[in-house]
Amino acid sequence: MLGVIEKASVLVEALPYIKFFSGKTVVIKYGGNAMLNEELKNSVMQDIVLMKFVGINPVVIHGGGPEITALMKRLGKQPQFVDGLRVTDAETVEIAEMVLSGKLSKEIVSLIQRHGGKAVGLSGKDGGLFRAEKHYHRVEGPMGPERKDIGFVGDIVEVNPELLENLIRASYIPVISSIAYGAGGETYNINADTAAGKLAAALKADKLVLLTDVEGIFDDYQDKTTLISTLKVADIPGKIQKGGIDGGMVPKVEACVTALEGGVTRTHIIDGRIPHSLLLEVFTQEGVGTMVVKD
Amino acid sequence: MLGVIEKASVLVEALPYIKFFSGKTVVIKYGGNAMLNEELKNSVMQDIVLMKFVGINPVVIHGGGPEITALMKRLGKQPQFVDGLRVTDAETVEIAEMVLSGKLSKEIVSLIQRHGGKAVGLSGKDGGLFRAEKHYHRVEGPMGPERKDIGFVGDIVEVNPELLENLIRASYIPVISSIAYGAGGETYNINADTAAGKLAAALKADKLVLLTDVEGIFDDYQDKTTLISTLKVADIPGKIQKGGIDGGMVPKVEACVTALEGGVTRTHIIDGRIPHSLLLEVFTQEGVGTMVVKD
Amino acid sequence: MLGVIEKASVLVEALPYIKFFSGKTVVIKYGGNAMLNEELKNSVMQDIVLMKFVGINPVVIHGGGPEITALMKRLGKQPQFVDGLRVTDAETVEIAEMVLSGKLSKEIVSLIQRHGGKAVGLSGKDGGLFRAEKHYHRVEGPMGPERKDIGFVGDIVEVNPELLENLIRASYIPVISSIAYGAGGETYNINADTAAGKLAAALKADKLVLLTDVEGIFDDYQDKTTLISTLKVADIPGKIQKGGIDGGMVPKVEACVTALEGGVTRTHIIDGRIPHSLLLEVFTQEGVGTMVVKD
Amino acid sequence: MLGVIEKASVLVEALPYIKFFSGKTVVIKYGGNAMLNEELKNSVMQDIVLMKFVGINPVVIHGGGPEITALMKRLGKQPQFVDGLRVTDAETVEIAEMVLSGKLSKEIVSLIQRHGGKAVGLSGKDGGLFRAEKHYHRVEGPMGPERKDIGFVGDIVEVNPELLENLIRASYIPVISSIAYGAGGETYNINADTAAGKLAAALKADKLVLLTDVEGIFDDYQDKTTLISTLKVADIPGKIQKGGIDGGMVPKVEACVTALEGGVTRTHIIDGRIPHSLLLEVFTQEGVGTMVVKD
Amino acid sequence: MLGVIEKASVLVEALPYIKFFSGKTVVIKYGGNAMLNEELKNSVMQDIVLMKFVGINPVVIHGGGPEITALMKRLGKQPQFVDGLRVTDAETVEIAEMVLSGKLSKEIVSLIQRHGGKAVGLSGKDGGLFRAEKHYHRVEGPMGPERKDIGFVGDIVEVNPELLENLIRASYIPVISSIAYGAGGETYNINADTAAGKLAAALKADKLVLLTDVEGIFDDYQDKTTLISTLKVADIPGKIQKGGIDGGMVPKVEACVTALEGGVTRTHIIDGRIPHSLLLEVFTQEGVGTMVVKD
Amino acid sequence: MLGVIEKASVLVEALPYIKFFSGKTVVIKYGGNAMLNEELKNSVMQDIVLMKFVGINPVVIHGGGPEITALMKRLGKQPQFVDGLRVTDAETVEIAEMVLSGKLSKEIVSLIQRHGGKAVGLSGKDGGLFRAEKHYHRVEGPMGPERKDIGFVGDIVEVNPELLENLIRASYIPVISSIAYGAGGETYNINADTAAGKLAAALKADKLVLLTDVEGIFDDYQDKTTLISTLKVADIPGKIQKGGIDGGMVPKVEACVTALEGGVTRTHIIDGRIPHSLLLEVFTQEGVGTMVVKD
Repeated sequence: MLGVIEKASVLVEALPYIKFFSGKTVVIKYGGNAMLNEELKNSVMQDIVLMKFVGINPVVIHGGGPEITALMKRLGKQPQFVDGLRVTDAETVEIAEMVLSGKLSKEIVSLIQRHGGKAVGLSGKDGGLFRAEKHYHRVEGPMGPERKDIGFVGDIVEVNPELLENLIRASYIPVISSIAYGAGGETYNINADTAAGKLAAALKADKLVLLTDVEGIFDDYQDKTTLISTLKVADIPGKIQKGGIDGGMVPKVEACVTALEGGVTRTHIIDGRIPHSLLLEVFTQEGVGTMVVKD
Repeated sequence: MLGVIEKASVLVEALPYIKFFSGKTVVIKYGGNAMLNEELKNSVMQDIVLMKFVGINPVVIHGGGPEITALMKRLGKQPQFVDGLRVTDAETVEIAEMVLSGKLSKEIVSLIQRHGGKAVGLSGKDGGLFRAEKHYHRVEGPMGPERKDIGFVGDIVEVNPELLENLIRASYIPVISSIAYGAGGETYNINADTAAGKLAAALKADKLVLLTDVEGIFDDYQDKTTLISTLKVADIPGKIQKGGIDGGMVPKVEACVTALEGGVTRTHIIDGRIPHSLLLEVFTQEGVGTMVVKD
Repeated sequence: MLGVIEKASVLVEALPYIKFFSGKTVVIKYGGNAMLNEELKNSVMQDIVLMKFVGINPVVIHGGGPEITALMKRLGKQPQFVDGLRVTDAETVEIAEMVLSGKLSKEIVSLIQRHGGKAVGLSGKDGGLFRAEKHYHRVEGPMGPERKDIGFVGDIVEVNPELLENLIRASYIPVISSIAYGAGGETYNINADTAAGKLAAALKADKLVLLTDVEGIFDDYQDKTTLISTLKVADIPGKIQKGGIDGGMVPKVEACVTALEGGVTRTHIIDGRIPHSLLLEVFTQEGVGTMVVKD
Repeated sequence: MLGVIEKASVLVEALPYIKFFSGKTVVIKYGGNAMLNEELKNSVMQDIVLMKFVGINPVVIHGGGPEITALMKRLGKQPQFVDGLRVTDAETVEIAEMVLSGKLSKEIVSLIQRHGGKAVGLSGKDGGLFRAEKHYHRVEGPMGPERKDIGFVGDIVEVNPELLENLIRASYIPVISSIAYGAGGETYNINADTAAGKLAAALKADKLVLLTDVEGIFDDYQDKTTLISTLKVADIPGKIQKGGIDGGMVPKVEACVTALEGGVTRTHIIDGRIPHSLLLEVFTQEGVGTMVVKD
Repeated sequence: MLGVIEKASVLVEALPYIKFFSGKTVVIKYGGNAMLNEELKNSVMQDIVLMKFVGINPVVIHGGGPEITALMKRLGKQPQFVDGLRVTDAETVEIAEMVLSGKLSKEIVSLIQRHGGKAVGLSGKDGGLFRAEKHYHRVEGPMGPERKDIGFVGDIVEVNPELLENLIRASYIPVISSIAYGAGGETYNINADTAAGKLAAALKADKLVLLTDVEGIFDDYQDKTTLISTLKVADIPGKIQKGGIDGGMVPKVEACVTALEGGVTRTHIIDGRIPHSLLLEVFTQEGVGTMVVKD
Repeated sequence: MLGVIEKASVLVEALPYIKFFSGKTVVIKYGGNAMLNEELKNSVMQDIVLMKFVGINPVVIHGGGPEITALMKRLGKQPQFVDGLRVTDAETVEIAEMVLSGKLSKEIVSLIQRHGGKAVGLSGKDGGLFRAEKHYHRVEGPMGPERKDIGFVGDIVEVNPELLENLIRASYIPVISSIAYGAGGETYNINADTAAGKLAAALKADKLVLLTDVEGIFDDYQDKTTLISTLKVADIPGKIQKGGIDGGMVPKVEACVTALEGGVTRTHIIDGRIPHSLLLEVFTQEGVGTMVVKD
């Protein structure tokens, strides 16, 4: 049990942050363990609703790879990946859309509402939020670099945040699945980290927070004392080259860079496995991961 | 080619309707052939966008039975029905939600947007739109009437139209799948006609229009000259008893009654197979089906 | 009797125009046969009210030469004209003002109101709408060109549309007689076509429509197949010189040019003898006369 | 030349009245000598503009009998009166309308604007301001009282002040001629005093001021020391019976009663021959005529 | 140093309170040690500014007895008291006003502003906030109870909170000295606790908090385990009679009752000697004194 | 007793001024005899309230030297002056603040309110109105000019008029004592004339009026016919050098210059001994002192 002095000190620390973030927009990329573990799920949803309580406008964007894979298998389709990107034929993109927009988004909406918030599940088609074009993946071929067609995987080329701005003004928490539409009416699956970066930039959000399954970025992943609390954009290329940032961390770091270039003030890669890591990140001086900043 | 006098006469007829309906809400139950035939699909979407153009607020609610059945079969599940109601286990309601909210709603949104409108696909979970309770179906058992559990089929017990009102004010066309949430967080599948009636009542809509695959209600279905252009609520029970209204027409007529009791002025069961039947219904004196009125 | 397909086609054609012109201002110069024939009078007034119904802001400006002449004669004054301009002594301008502002404007107001609109009859004195200076007419004299004084005929030198903007916002249809005030308190009679052009420019109207007693402008007036549907400003001087535009058509064409130079998008000289020619012009692709455009 | 102490005393007296009347509506019946004498005309117009300057909303309504008579004579028509009411055939009402709405209203508008105000000349047709029905005059016939048809003389049966309220909000001074429309589109001439009373009531004006050519109402018109400064409604019938109020004064006093019954706080019959009598009435304790009050 | 779990738990506890109190008004009676000790002074001011930060509207009202006494003595006046009430002659009330309104209020304003808030120092004269009448004190005289005149000590008979409401809307923190005006222009000194109760009632505050130099109200003041955390209004008279509430605590408890009767939801007598006791009271479940409630 | 013609002439003269100044801000430096004589006090307060009545926003700023001196003496302190500036130690500034903010401001507030206005007494600390820095006085020392420390006498370095703007919008008359705060929390006494100039500039006032005990500035003070009615800024340095402006008049003239440089249109040094000199200055063409203008 905390004493009154300790409690008072947390309040004195937190209240200026609450003032500062009031009325501001925070984009949260939701994924990983925090989306699978029941207790973490509830702690994240409670944090989002509490943030809304004190005037912050959270916007949630989520992935859902494991669930897509599961339904594909039930329908007898074997998932295939190229450099971590899912090869996505017409049937696969339909499956992805049904899983992301028809199941996961609506599930998150339900959870937020059970914690006392008001939420709306949307995809990038609604209100023309995300317009995409086909993504051609670069691979090394026998004769040098080649563009490889991996199907209905898209790059976002236009974000129209008008619908979100309307819903935010009306006090809803938007929950977005990373599906986009193409100019010809086709559907694209989008990497959720990448979409989060684009979205934060288009909303002129104050913060982008990506929930991950690691403590953050390390100088030396073997040595847990080397967590980098602040990473500058200028230092990222070097880190990628040296392998300090690799695999699934690359699109996350790139999303931070996209957001920062679009005017977002601060971006954070935090450990979604710590309960209430979102609250701690926003309302305390505590570092719970790596902050990526412009300079 | 129409002459100028004929054109002028249509305008002189239509403009007062355009004035009258400006700013009013029309709930459209979209289903049947108009949802399957490509040309009709486009004609309906164009009508909806044109209605919006002249200040009407259309709200679309749709079904999707055939598509649900198709996915169930692909997943090796055999659909079962009791008196036309789908027996809906946990897996089936998840399939229904994915098909309705994840596929069909978003497809309609895309089509509306390609015709120049702004649309948002929602389910009854979003913004707490539809709260439902389990529906117990009454069947005749060996020992008299029995309540039969047919799974996650729900009755709407509360409609919260706040989200729709916000979106309408912001000029969006809401597209709604008839999925609801339960107090314990469970998901329910709802008959789309029934949901349309409840929705029209909650929105205090001016009109409810149900697109069907018949010309309307007849006194004698064998004799095509007996189309009833205006049907009074008081005459419905007799017609049902005598079999003049049966099968899938019963929930449609009941939806009209629900809407009328909730304050909707006029309700219409129209022939969705005629191109632009929506426009004709709203902007001309022409009858394109059966109008159900209070008295 | 039109079939539903034909009716639907007119609606599909008209609704985008209705959207497009909603909230926009259309200045209508009312005169000629449409002001004398009872049936045409009613058809014009109905058109104006229907335009208002669907959100357009019509502004009516009218002439009344024949009525002025009639009262002059009853008062024993012989009308005199120089190149079509009425020689206007103090008594004549008082007669003109009484006829235009005291009789014709109020009669139009009454008619619009009997068709369901709200109208206000104004002259260029009200709210300081039109300030004029004396017009000196150029004639060929024995010793070359001379300025001839033809009395209280004025040129508009300032338009103050504030009053009209107020009335339009409050949903009134302004009906304006082409009378102006001078800096010294004197009254001027103004050519109504010329005033219409100035007014459309000052209101930043979207359209100026002049109702005339001809089908439009022809390449060869003998050959009715040579109607010019679109006339460019640049081609006007040539046509005037060659006599293709002459007499009362000159001030009409000049009014179009004034309006276009003032920012009006489109100007039209249409045949006021066709019933509902206004509606057809505004809401269909049909050409009912000659459109004068910048280039 | 006034000393500073005297000037200060007028200001100290006037400023509370200025505060009190700010934002309030004063209906002024303009007529008599003040409408004929050039100097008085200018002093009235200056007063009206000064009242507007300090936030009062003056509304002017005027008569014009002598001018109507003059034009009738020029057109060869002999004016006829029954008990002071003009017998008004179709031609006469057209003449009256042209003179009142087409000449006098516009002249007053011009004068107000030359003194720095903004004015709009209206008749009872504009915006449906005055709807009238035929007035049947009661005369003593050989067989007792009879209803006599004196033509297009009307009784106001409905006042729609919406247009005036709009113009007042937009800072215009409405100038109204006492012409009304009938349900069948016909035109009626109305007694201007009577119209002023109806108008003040419909506008919920704070004051009605009638400018006349007498000092006010006297107990004994022979004895100029018997001016009644305050007359109660209850005392009026007695005064009329005894002849203390007669002729043209009757409709003036009745207009005051109509206004008071309609909620107007104070009504005044003042001497329009005193320069600036309007200012003195409104801004000083000075009595410049007879005030008629409820009790 | 607190761990992240403890910090998170304080935030999860506090955020719903922050939401709940946002936009609400809290009247704080400031006095006692918290007004004398430099560290406590700063902690109170910081709390007030932090409350403002998160949307609460604090209103401060203060006393200042010791300072008044000090200045009186410096001016050679011997303070006199009757039952704890200061005998207040004309000179004394002038001194009291100068000390309270001219020194202490302005000092608190300065401190709040140095902590980042915006404050305004007011007395009950400003904007007609407190109107008072002479307070006659009841004492036991030789012949029974007597009304004793103790000078310019007043009872508040009218509170006009309009000025405070204006300042609150404009984000200022009002700081009020308990001085009132009389109908004849005279000045009254008011007990600050009593004034706080009246003020909270007039403002329809949500909370009244009185900072005192005790832990709260005890059942048995000898036994520190008997602190009463919630005291019902109905139990107060008994406690006063039995001496459980006496001396300076009586006006404080009465202020709570006044506030509760005026519609204030909760009132609190808290220990101003604990740093940040205000924050703890408002944002945690922790009790830091005695809450007085209606029932 | 004035006749109606004289009264009317004052009104005709005053009403345009009333219109002109409506909504404008007039800063009034209140001091001298007008603050000591009971009758003048009441006449000034009445003027201020009457100005407010007709839409002007008066802002009052006052001095109080004689009262400060009196309290100092009662507390046994001997006032000391250097070149007319009070030497102000810590105790003196506390006395000055209590007298100005705690006594005189509140007394003026009471008087304004008894005349029917709404007033608020403020010091330069409230809402951070006046921030000051220490004023070092330049004197001639034995070795040339020296900076002399005369204690807590300040120069205003920043004016934050936000609070005043709020109060003015809410119809209050601010009454300001010339006390300021320093960056370190210390209190400064400020010359009230100087503060008035700074304040008028910061408020973008339309007028600054300084009430004095002289008729104005003279060319030759011996010859009362040489009153300067308009003084140009450019002519001031010469006048000061020649001694035409000296003593207490110097800071008054400098205040006018500060105000004019800050955008105030007109500044006036008027004779506060004439009753209602404020009204005369604002609402008549009468000169009641010296107007200082830019050029």
